Amino acid sequence: MQTVKLTDDLQFSRIIHGLWRLSDWGLTNEQTLALTEQCLELGITTFDHADIYGDYTCEERFGEALALKPSLRDSMQIVTKTGIKLKSSKFPDRKINFYDTSKEHIVKSAEQSLRNLRTDYVDVLLIHRPDPFMNPEEVAEAFIQLKEQGKVRHFGVSNFKRSQFDMLQAHLPFSLVTNQIEVSPTYLDHFDLGTIEQCQQHKIAPMAWSPLGGGSIFTADDERSVRVRAKLEEVGAELGAASLDQVAYAWLLAHPAMIMPIVGSGKIERIQSAVDALDLNMNRMQWFQILESSKGRPVD
Amino acid sequence: MQTVKLTDDLQFSRIIHGLWRLSDWGLTNEQTLALTEQCLELGITTFDHADIYGDYTCEERFGEALALKPSLRDSMQIVTKTGIKLKSSKFPDRKINFYDTSKEHIVKSAEQSLRNLRTDYVDVLLIHRPDPFMNPEEVAEAFIQLKEQGKVRHFGVSNFKRSQFDMLQAHLPFSLVTNQIEVSPTYLDHFDLGTIEQCQQHKIAPMAWSPLGGGSIFTADDERSVRVRAKLEEVGAELGAASLDQVAYAWLLAHPAMIMPIVGSGKIERIQSAVDALDLNMNRMQWFQILESSKGRPVD
Amino acid sequence: MQTVKLTDDLQFSRIIHGLWRLSDWGLTNEQTLALTEQCLELGITTFDHADIYGDYTCEERFGEALALKPSLRDSMQIVTKTGIKLKSSKFPDRKINFYDTSKEHIVKSAEQSLRNLRTDYVDVLLIHRPDPFMNPEEVAEAFIQLKEQGKVRHFGVSNFKRSQFDMLQAHLPFSLVTNQIEVSPTYLDHFDLGTIEQCQQHKIAPMAWSPLGGGSIFTADDERSVRVRAKLEEVGAELGAASLDQVAYAWLLAHPAMIMPIVGSGKIERIQSAVDALDLNMNRMQWFQILESSKGRPVD
Repeated sequence: MQTVKLTDDLQFSRIIHGLWRLSDWGLTNEQTLALTEQCLELGITTFDHADIYGDYTCEERFGEALALKPSLRDSMQIVTKTGIKLKSSKFPDRKINFYDTSKEHIVKSAEQSLRNLRTDYVDVLLIHRPDPFMNPEEVAEAFIQLKEQGKVRHFGVSNFKRSQFDMLQAHLPFSLVTNQIEVSPTYLDHFDLGTIEQCQQHKIAPMAWSPLGGGSIFTADDERSVRVRAKLEEVGAELGAASLDQVAYAWLLAHPAMIMPIVGSGKIERIQSAVDALDLNMNRMQWFQILESSKGRPVD
Repeated sequence: MQTVKLTDDLQFSRIIHGLWRLSDWGLTNEQTLALTEQCLELGITTFDHADIYGDYTCEERFGEALALKPSLRDSMQIVTKTGIKLKSSKFPDRKINFYDTSKEHIVKSAEQSLRNLRTDYVDVLLIHRPDPFMNPEEVAEAFIQLKEQGKVRHFGVSNFKRSQFDMLQAHLPFSLVTNQIEVSPTYLDHFDLGTIEQCQQHKIAPMAWSPLGGGSIFTADDERSVRVRAKLEEVGAELGAASLDQVAYAWLLAHPAMIMPIVGSGKIERIQSAVDALDLNMNRMQWFQILESSKGRPVD
Repeated sequence: MQTVKLTDDLQFSRIIHGLWRLSDWGLTNEQTLALTEQCLELGITTFDHADIYGDYTCEERFGEALALKPSLRDSMQIVTKTGIKLKSSKFPDRKINFYDTSKEHIVKSAEQSLRNLRTDYVDVLLIHRPDPFMNPEEVAEAFIQLKEQGKVRHFGVSNFKRSQFDMLQAHLPFSLVTNQIEVSPTYLDHFDLGTIEQCQQHKIAPMAWSPLGGGSIFTADDERSVRVRAKLEEVGAELGAASLDQVAYAWLLAHPAMIMPIVGSGKIERIQSAVDALDLNMNRMQWFQILESSKGRPVD
């Protein structure tokens, strides 16, 4: 498995396993452990969490599985997130979903993540959404404290636009190591917004969530999805791809920004399929054919 | 009154009095002086002008009032603006409103402001609008000359987008001290444009004009204004606010960017109301409830 | 002829001759040479090419003309471009137009341009379009190699937005010397996008393609073009301009960013007309009158 160097002391696997839906997969802790070990055998060493996934349950389920074999911890990198306060029966006072990037919340949330995940540290903590009420000085204080205490090794962001990234980075004494964004053949916003270019400018690799467009490439019947699906099939045939999702992954993997797709499946075959996409070498023209199918017009 | 440190030698009061409509208030010079002294008693020490306000009359009226008690000058900070050439009976050659940020116009306009305001210096001079015909080298020359001559202590901008701010700042040997922008619960553009984040990045505090949305929060009957008004009332009841405008001010004041609202009223009760908003402590969830009511959708 | 200093060792003529349509002009090599010499006599020393112009033929035609009098080479600056792969009968494998900014393609394309143009070097090589598949490290490697070999003296971009410019510049050990963008009284996008402001920030002069809006100012009958044409005529009368195109050129030339219009005509009278526009001194109000006619609304 190809790895991506995020810092001198941190490497991610090019394919990342996403635990967003862990609670929906109906797995016992033993099954979760087995799935995790299968990922590791495939070379997937990076696991993506958030405090809020599964209505605040996924971290804990993963932690319980990990507790069955704690020695695995050192073979993996754990990413988790903070900054969203979700309306939930667990927090009856909350009237709406909102963001909280106060120092207090970041620190408390990260410490709770450590307990949930049964670990002493997370490798990377991300601010989940750009908070319009953010005080970047407070975020910096929280990050510095968590780093000094050894609770979090590195920090990043998710869904941040350029101005938000620049603002936060300007207050930090170390570099943000990634921006986790939505990218797929049917979701190109971060190309248009310059977010991916910003990552390339700062020489950091983005993580891609929803790399299959939330499944739209398989089933959606809007014009755009139909066009993209047809082109993925055409290019897939040229490449000898085994399935449509492989072509979508290959499209992300071909890009020079070193995009790291997050595969959010509980089925090892689907995960394997993403890993196999690393062997497909999509060429530049094929990449643009898929881009054009998504934009619905040729490049200028 | 809370103050905001703009530079080592410049502090603004958190609430600023705006003289935009001074000519409409029908005040004698004595009454203007009285209003100004009442502001000062409330702790409002910063007064916002522009050369063009009241068809080029407001600065002079304020200056005449100030001339009745010149000792007040040292207790206040005066902000004024330059860069717009207004179609006016005073300038019959002008066929349209346009911008002029030439060195000649900036210097002449600032010197005229000093005469109008009966003062030897203004604390901050702002470029009123981002001039698409701007020569940033000329602006820099004008600023440097005015600063060296002691006529203007510091410089800022108004209504500048990120690219415009960056361009001008790159030509200056000192930091712009503020960006005066339109912000209110019903006007969120500068959140979306990243202007406020740019201020936070550069650690400068924005001034907010039209903090009550031009009165829309009181009376406008479009869907958005109605939604915002209802939420301001709900949150206001929770906070024990005395009036709707206080909740709108509290929303601006709660934000970590240290937004300084400009209160453009000639009635001391309305000004007092803004000052009282400093005692309301809006929490994060309430802030987002109002944001959500304005956007018409939850945060992601 | 006014010149523009791009670097310590590179000057462009303020008016640039564009060879985009050379193949359409039906000129013999002798006639192309004569046209080029007439340009030089007018003081136009900068000639704008691209590998793809005229379906990959224009560079060669110009080179053949230049071969009739090689001594001219030292009196001119040649700009050419790379990065687009055009669908063409010459390249039957290409199914679509796409971009290629790989090191291999940039180097090969630049070397082919030298052969086509019958010259040992080009003064400036531009990346023709912002490639969403760009690897800025590869571009930098290509640029550095071409520079060290003396094949290209300086580098720039074309049609790049701010994020794309920033990304590429961050990877280069030298400054990009220009951004060639579309600007005209009927095409204002790069004012709105902040591209021109970015050039001013970096103190580089933009080149303007399609400075007459692709001819729209003469003949288009959409509302906007009609409004702009009427205003160009009005201002032209005030300035004593000889023709409509002169007023459009004067509008670009008046702007402080030192915009260099590319005149893409094969008729020396039309080129002469652009040069004569340098003598028109459009004032600020006239400039804004034309801007307002294009925007369809006054400035704020």
